[in-house]
Amino acid sequence: MKTRIITISREFGSGGRTVGKQTAKLLGIPCYDQEVIEKVAQESGFAKEFIKERGEYTPYGGWFAQALTGRSARGTSPQDDLWVIQRKVILELAEKPCVIVGRCADYILREEADLLKAFIYADMEKRADRIVRLYGETEEAPIKRLKDKDKRRAAYYNFYTDTQWGSVHSYHISLDSGALGIDKCSEILASLY
Amino acid sequence: MKTRIITISREFGSGGRTVGKQTAKLLGIPCYDQEVIEKVAQESGFAKEFIKERGEYTPYGGWFAQALTGRSARGTSPQDDLWVIQRKVILELAEKPCVIVGRCADYILREEADLLKAFIYADMEKRADRIVRLYGETEEAPIKRLKDKDKRRAAYYNFYTDTQWGSVHSYHISLDSGALGIDKCSEILASLY
Repeated sequence: MKTRIITISREFGSGGRTVGKQTAKLLGIPCYDQEVIEKVAQESGFAKEFIKERGEYTPYGGWFAQALTGRSARGTSPQDDLWVIQRKVILELAEKPCVIVGRCADYILREEADLLKAFIYADMEKRADRIVRLYGETEEAPIKRLKDKDKRRAAYYNFYTDTQWGSVHSYHISLDSGALGIDKCSEILASLY
Repeated sequence: MKTRIITISREFGSGGRTVGKQTAKLLGIPCYDQEVIEKVAQESGFAKEFIKERGEYTPYGGWFAQALTGRSARGTSPQDDLWVIQRKVILELAEKPCVIVGRCADYILREEADLLKAFIYADMEKRADRIVRLYGETEEAPIKRLKDKDKRRAAYYNFYTDTQWGSVHSYHISLDSGALGIDKCSEILASLY
């Protein structure tokens, strides 16, 4: 396959964002992660924290909250509006070669012939160790934080796409960054470009 | 990670066996596939066809048939006996560096520190095309053949292991051979050795 765009879906704490940055660096192309949030903020007026959270996670309470929270009379929620703007921003960014991390970019760009869809994950122990190292301790135990993030991210993905988050069939390649290492994952993805 | 053994789980028609053979060739180590069946036949007295089928697939009828078919008074079935012998053969083969295709080798060898677990898959269309090309037409439509094989192979795996067949977390790397190509998949696996 010919690759021009790489999307990276990732489990929280797996280092998927770092894999994205490193892959892009190896290829000399941009990597969009925080930049998507900033561009959506400019275009929508939504606060960055809202975009960061609600452009990738369901609210607490699962699909029920997802389906009902803040719906207007015309049946859409602010989260739905965010989805539409986020989609537009991602389609614009993908006009030139790049790496895009998260935000259902794999699904949004699924019609692109030259798209490589990657999923980065790791076991709980390695991810817990990483989030404590990077983000510090919180009152909530790291495993509980991870489980909550996984659940809400998967619920968001499954709600807005017709594919399953974390199922091999949603991606072209899935890599365990805990076992293979972040550098090796980046090299493999760059070699597929 | 240090790799000494590579196990390849694969969807029927994905070319996973060919990936295994090619990877082993690149590394100059043996690939065991048919050889496992022959060794099990020698040690058990079971017919090769029985081993081929019942060492990787549940009988028709799903877990219910799986759980009940041919159980003796002591509660085991010929398939359980086959599992025990197959497990022993795989542990023996894995004493030296090699590639092993299928037969739950990933689960059987899970305690090995230097094991790389790979899953090879492809979309239905590419697999249907491949099985018709390799094995010819049959009365049963190719998509139906694939779905049946997938279902019975997953049921077998889930029955004898405590992990999920085809879930990213059961493997270190999952590759879509239809999108990436069989040669590229083999190169990636060899590069992880």
